Amino acid sequence: MDETRGTRAPGRASRDAFIASTGRLLRRQGYGATGLNEIVRRSGAPRGSLYFHFPGGKEELAAAAMERTGEELRVAIAAVIGSRPRASESLSALIDGLGAGLEASGYRDGCPIATVTLEAAGASETVRLAAERVFNSWLAELERGLVADGLDAEQAARRALLVLSAIEGALLLARARRDLAPLQAVRDELAALASHR
Amino acid sequence: MDETRGTRAPGRASRDAFIASTGRLLRRQGYGATGLNEIVRRSGAPRGSLYFHFPGGKEELAAAAMERTGEELRVAIAAVIGSRPRASESLSALIDGLGAGLEASGYRDGCPIATVTLEAAGASETVRLAAERVFNSWLAELERGLVADGLDAEQAARRALLVLSAIEGALLLARARRDLAPLQAVRDELAALASHR
Repeated sequence: MDETRGTRAPGRASRDAFIASTGRLLRRQGYGATGLNEIVRRSGAPRGSLYFHFPGGKEELAAAAMERTGEELRVAIAAVIGSRPRASESLSALIDGLGAGLEASGYRDGCPIATVTLEAAGASETVRLAAERVFNSWLAELERGLVADGLDAEQAARRALLVLSAIEGALLLARARRDLAPLQAVRDELAALASHR
Repeated sequence: MDETRGTRAPGRASRDAFIASTGRLLRRQGYGATGLNEIVRRSGAPRGSLYFHFPGGKEELAAAAMERTGEELRVAIAAVIGSRPRASESLSALIDGLGAGLEASGYRDGCPIATVTLEAAGASETVRLAAERVFNSWLAELERGLVADGLDAEQAARRALLVLSAIEGALLLARARRDLAPLQAVRDELAALASHR
């Protein structure tokens, strides 16, 4: 930390704080309910630096937060995918981990970018492109694991789309029902599908 | 219409108009971006009757709109599920229909209740319970089709959760990417899964 601090632009800590607080708010309550006032207050950073770092305002800040939380989850997916001998076992572990996190948050912390994507991708190309990049980065990790497991590139691309879609949808249903049954069903059905090939 | 009009409460048309405009706005832009002013303006109904019909305000109105659009989609699902000899063919037709609707709307009209569920289910028990009821009504139709296709009740419940989760997630990914590949992948993978049993 100390070695690199000297090379940082002034206010880099503020920029990070804005992104972190935006990421948490987007995950819990989405884009529409999250105002710049709340982002500034929770960040603890000076309000005056917000437009210095994010001249594009809330859209630009949301996109930066989506990229940040998206990259954190990509790293987590990559770690789990490589952790088990079979892709299907890795996927089960990934789904169980997401379910445990959701339950521990009182069914509030689902996918960090799904809510803002549904709300804003239609009106903001900035937000849509951030969402597309993040989803594609997750798909690439899933594909890598499926190819290592023996699927060809085309099968892996299709299967990865099913896997990510099913996980995203199960996180949605789990929030509505306040139970983990959708995630458990997806886990078991995907495992069954993997055993057929 | 004329026969029943006499028995309707005064302002029933206003109530319907509020619900219809709320449903369209929740589908396109979600809960946070939808204000009561816009709902009233688009409904064409008198503002003064809003709190008469919906004393619970925006939460109650959102729940009513979710139930309405949810019931419309349940009827559509039931019609498609019974339209083909095999459940897997019906599901493919359902997914293609949802994809065609999404594309025709410029990738704006996905699931009518997913956005509001992700935004508001954590903070509003009224919204969460409406979402839970609607998702369960769709699951029941899917289960019915899967049982008719030979799955036992437990298998059908699990498979229906996978199917609905995958469709919801694919609608999300399709909106982010502005392409139908996620829905097509889900359709093809679910058909392959069905052929194994």
